[in-house]
Amino acid sequence: MKAFVMKEIGRVGFMDKPVPKPGPSDAVVRTTSALICTSDSHTVHGGIGPRKDLTLGHEAVGIVHAVGSEVKDFRPGDRVLVGAITPDWGDLASQNGFPSQSGGPLGGFKFANRKDGVFADCFHVNDADANLARIPDSIGDEMAVYCADMLSTGFVGAEKGNIPIGGTVAVLAQGPVGLMATVGARLRGAGRVIGVESVPSRQKLAREYGADEIVDFTSEDVVERVHELTGGEGVDTAIEALGADITFQTAVKITKPGGTVSNIGYFGEGEFVRIPRVEWGVGMADQTIATGLCPGGRLRMERLLRVLEAKRVDPTHLTTHTFAFDDMERAFEVADKKLEDVVKVLITF
Amino acid sequence: MKAFVMKEIGRVGFMDKPVPKPGPSDAVVRTTSALICTSDSHTVHGGIGPRKDLTLGHEAVGIVHAVGSEVKDFRPGDRVLVGAITPDWGDLASQNGFPSQSGGPLGGFKFANRKDGVFADCFHVNDADANLARIPDSIGDEMAVYCADMLSTGFVGAEKGNIPIGGTVAVLAQGPVGLMATVGARLRGAGRVIGVESVPSRQKLAREYGADEIVDFTSEDVVERVHELTGGEGVDTAIEALGADITFQTAVKITKPGGTVSNIGYFGEGEFVRIPRVEWGVGMADQTIATGLCPGGRLRMERLLRVLEAKRVDPTHLTTHTFAFDDMERAFEVADKKLEDVVKVLITF
Amino acid sequence: MKAFVMKEIGRVGFMDKPVPKPGPSDAVVRTTSALICTSDSHTVHGGIGPRKDLTLGHEAVGIVHAVGSEVKDFRPGDRVLVGAITPDWGDLASQNGFPSQSGGPLGGFKFANRKDGVFADCFHVNDADANLARIPDSIGDEMAVYCADMLSTGFVGAEKGNIPIGGTVAVLAQGPVGLMATVGARLRGAGRVIGVESVPSRQKLAREYGADEIVDFTSEDVVERVHELTGGEGVDTAIEALGADITFQTAVKITKPGGTVSNIGYFGEGEFVRIPRVEWGVGMADQTIATGLCPGGRLRMERLLRVLEAKRVDPTHLTTHTFAFDDMERAFEVADKKLEDVVKVLITF
Amino acid sequence: MKAFVMKEIGRVGFMDKPVPKPGPSDAVVRTTSALICTSDSHTVHGGIGPRKDLTLGHEAVGIVHAVGSEVKDFRPGDRVLVGAITPDWGDLASQNGFPSQSGGPLGGFKFANRKDGVFADCFHVNDADANLARIPDSIGDEMAVYCADMLSTGFVGAEKGNIPIGGTVAVLAQGPVGLMATVGARLRGAGRVIGVESVPSRQKLAREYGADEIVDFTSEDVVERVHELTGGEGVDTAIEALGADITFQTAVKITKPGGTVSNIGYFGEGEFVRIPRVEWGVGMADQTIATGLCPGGRLRMERLLRVLEAKRVDPTHLTTHTFAFDDMERAFEVADKKLEDVVKVLITF
Repeated sequence: MKAFVMKEIGRVGFMDKPVPKPGPSDAVVRTTSALICTSDSHTVHGGIGPRKDLTLGHEAVGIVHAVGSEVKDFRPGDRVLVGAITPDWGDLASQNGFPSQSGGPLGGFKFANRKDGVFADCFHVNDADANLARIPDSIGDEMAVYCADMLSTGFVGAEKGNIPIGGTVAVLAQGPVGLMATVGARLRGAGRVIGVESVPSRQKLAREYGADEIVDFTSEDVVERVHELTGGEGVDTAIEALGADITFQTAVKITKPGGTVSNIGYFGEGEFVRIPRVEWGVGMADQTIATGLCPGGRLRMERLLRVLEAKRVDPTHLTTHTFAFDDMERAFEVADKKLEDVVKVLITF
Repeated sequence: MKAFVMKEIGRVGFMDKPVPKPGPSDAVVRTTSALICTSDSHTVHGGIGPRKDLTLGHEAVGIVHAVGSEVKDFRPGDRVLVGAITPDWGDLASQNGFPSQSGGPLGGFKFANRKDGVFADCFHVNDADANLARIPDSIGDEMAVYCADMLSTGFVGAEKGNIPIGGTVAVLAQGPVGLMATVGARLRGAGRVIGVESVPSRQKLAREYGADEIVDFTSEDVVERVHELTGGEGVDTAIEALGADITFQTAVKITKPGGTVSNIGYFGEGEFVRIPRVEWGVGMADQTIATGLCPGGRLRMERLLRVLEAKRVDPTHLTTHTFAFDDMERAFEVADKKLEDVVKVLITF
Repeated sequence: MKAFVMKEIGRVGFMDKPVPKPGPSDAVVRTTSALICTSDSHTVHGGIGPRKDLTLGHEAVGIVHAVGSEVKDFRPGDRVLVGAITPDWGDLASQNGFPSQSGGPLGGFKFANRKDGVFADCFHVNDADANLARIPDSIGDEMAVYCADMLSTGFVGAEKGNIPIGGTVAVLAQGPVGLMATVGARLRGAGRVIGVESVPSRQKLAREYGADEIVDFTSEDVVERVHELTGGEGVDTAIEALGADITFQTAVKITKPGGTVSNIGYFGEGEFVRIPRVEWGVGMADQTIATGLCPGGRLRMERLLRVLEAKRVDPTHLTTHTFAFDDMERAFEVADKKLEDVVKVLITF
Repeated sequence: MKAFVMKEIGRVGFMDKPVPKPGPSDAVVRTTSALICTSDSHTVHGGIGPRKDLTLGHEAVGIVHAVGSEVKDFRPGDRVLVGAITPDWGDLASQNGFPSQSGGPLGGFKFANRKDGVFADCFHVNDADANLARIPDSIGDEMAVYCADMLSTGFVGAEKGNIPIGGTVAVLAQGPVGLMATVGARLRGAGRVIGVESVPSRQKLAREYGADEIVDFTSEDVVERVHELTGGEGVDTAIEALGADITFQTAVKITKPGGTVSNIGYFGEGEFVRIPRVEWGVGMADQTIATGLCPGGRLRMERLLRVLEAKRVDPTHLTTHTFAFDDMERAFEVADKKLEDVVKVLITF
């Protein structure tokens, strides 16, 4: 089968690989739609270290191609969604309530990291009964695929942010994950959502997805502006959806005492992420810094699909580009170099 | 001043009373809009025992008429909202996180219970700085007044229900509080909201306020139907918004293991409220029964006003009747006897 | 191999059964020590319906006899503890945070319910890597076996009770589970633990295990006495460790507004468990009723073993009787009929 | 009356001040015992900026000398404890659940910060009914005074650390607050408490107060050693009880994915407190950083007194030095310069 791989750091391309075989509890899924993620770029540029001929991609839906002997709830032909994170559910971290950390820190993140990813004709899924979810007929593949990572990661930023109904929330950076965090903040009942973003097309999407105010850090001091918008208080919750030291510092500074900084950004560089000491209340302002990795698993995916089924949000407006799998090289270039105001690139198979 | 009072059990009417005077931390508010609540009926019919010449009403907005010497943040002329519950914030129950229980069980409920209520030209508010909230210009009195009890009580049903994003919720009874619980379930991100209601006009409102499905208990078995709608599982959260033994039993029966029954109904009669033993998992299904009384206080009211300001919901569709204060007797009759498909009765001053 | 079974409702005895075989992820354990539980009696008397030749018992430790091909962390010869509850970790209820409810309500409870129990020379354990725990050398079998159910159930009563440091707790009934709930309340930092019990030998154990006060319901009014002991307030947390309608009612009555009734009692009879309406604050006192089933799994067992290893508690004082497995019939009679002031009966193999 | 003040940065001494007068809700307390805190040193050396003739001290007990007209529960002559933090209970931060932040960040910290402290013959307490607690006869002043800050701060480190029963906890630095955090970890049910400390006398106290293991950072690599002690996993909870950048980094490094770093250290210097990026799981390890300021208020103090009354801990072993108030200058020198292996200095009046 055809697979789009990272050949080595900095180099991608197609190669031929055998169709994977499922273990007793596993499934193999034939890909129908996939999305390119910023993490794919990080990986290619060496963010998680060297890899050789590793199939890229972790956001996909497809049709079950084969299942292992112990799989009970899925059959070949089923149309399914797979979370970007596919936990080992019996692991001690899962028993502790953190399945994304099963098998070690960030260990639930297997696709295009610990094993081949989803940019291929077929891909392998561990523990099919626990990690696949059937897609309802009313939801198309190109919509369902957003649950795998974008909705799950964006929403967990809101969930871990402990947002009260009517609370104030700032979402720092309105990329695809930040936009879905904006949706998540609305879904938790935020009374005012402030999107921090400078790119006009993303500002527009932010308003569409529920931001009540936009703050442009290129023309305004974010800390001052957010305090102004919140009567001098700061927000109940700041969601860091970029993964940059300076943005994280801003998140701490705009969050009120007793509030929560909820991080869903991937910090790709530097030895430290720095907390501004004084604005952090010298460590005594009852502020919480929460972090999370995209929740996966069947239950999570079923719940996200229900959100789509009930038409609470239409994530397909994030799709700025669509390519056939055969054009994957160009597709990856667009995403990697952030060409043409790209937000998300959809790949069809 | 004119006040509409409960003269004794079963008898209401106008009487003249002196304008109250504020203590050092208190305020007196001149009423501009008020709402009649089912609890007013309960009270008149003896639900909280005998009262003599007690001014009725606990949902109101108005203009500050006078403030005590220690009040810092409010001045005569300010347009303000007052929660139905006005806690004593220093009380041990408040320190424990339950201000509605300050001064004893349900002790935050003072209006038309422990002291005169709001159906009068003026009414008294304890601890003005902590219990008043300024109303933004963009929100009319007839909308803001819904925060006092309807939004606060309805929403707390959702908040205590521990609803996951994409979770399933049933709201039992779509009276005004149940309708606002339906809104609350949507505000917390429910993926499917099932409204249980038999009255057509309320079913219609339920759909408008966010119910995805309606179950009519007069034509369907609620337990069967809810299990059918949830793939046999039951809901994550059932909100009891009526206060009837049979409804409470249904709530327990339709909630899945690990789920939450969130009660905001006032149980007015009977020695017991009964939990169905077997469906409760013989006490071992990891099910939680949460209860709450309308949260009050300035912060809560400010957050609810923010929800209105951001146009997340328009509660004024609950207003089926409007009367001037002079017509209070007829207004009360309509509300008390549930005439003319009444939902909420607004009183203007 | 020899197994002690429930032949039919009301009749027990030995029979010969084949040694079970492990599936790919499973283990078979050779029993070394076991405890008889009140639930075994319930089961024999028909509490969970008819069973034929079902091996009894769910509290055991032993030596791994055989493991399936997929088991990674355990080998024959390992000395292991098995929780009374052995969840399916990939199940949706487990993903939802309630592994004891995996496979349906109370579905994690498999031993002597859905499959043969542990009163046999050998028994079968599903998902060995996730459900077994290695016993440290410093802990004897006759101590470790208490983790399986007694510590896990007793402690979860305290954990779900949301006890603040310095809070007040009542534990209703000081049977073995109630005694371990008393220990659990102390482990969570309770400032005053009130044990409700009438049997002198159990009162003595209650004091030894950390009850600061004993209330004897045969000579005192429990509701009055607890209010007296708590300055009229009621307790922060009442743990129901019996499973009786009247005890449950008392638990509600002695819990303060905002407090928690934490149920770990198994309610074996009656159509309803009844909440006293008025003392429950007519459903509005911010009181929570939490319920739980014994948590199982390797992580839980490892943590409980750590509690023993650190000598925080010595549960072996619960052992009032010890019998060899060959004397199981007499042992069961003592436990079943509650002869000789029995608390727990230990079976050695 | 006599007061021990900070005359200016770096200079302390006695001066005469008038006895304060209570406002309507306030009390004035005649000091009987007080403790010197490291924060007093910080303050004198300019940690919170310049102050002129500010009375020092925030840990005290005493006898009520006078009360305002609105005070209901206390009378002159009552023996009382006052928390180091005396919140404004009606403030929005208090309504939000964070009374220590009332009146602005860390605003509940009034003594020797926003107003005169307790090192004087008498001191003023705002909102007496909400901020005083009666001391039971069985507890001496020299013991009760430890509740004001040491127990409250140490314990909140454990409470915010989300420690599971049987969990593993490291407490970094075994000064007086760290030692009480060690006690707090035990009170929450930790299965293994690791105290990090190099001073022998404090190591000894750490063992006495419940540390199961001691790690000496001068002779061992703390990160390696803690991983060794926890089977390579890291701890469930690390409590930072020093307030140093390097210690904070260690806390992050030794905490497992899904675990909590609970900070109770006051960070007195540097622009930033730095999170080690990689060991923090690049912001995605589901790790939480919680912070808190000493909880105050009557309920908290009553609960802490209950812990002492029940003899769960004897904090007086922290008292290494006792001086009469007249010898305050020498007392302060001992505490300030950390002479003679000082832990806590008690002042008697």
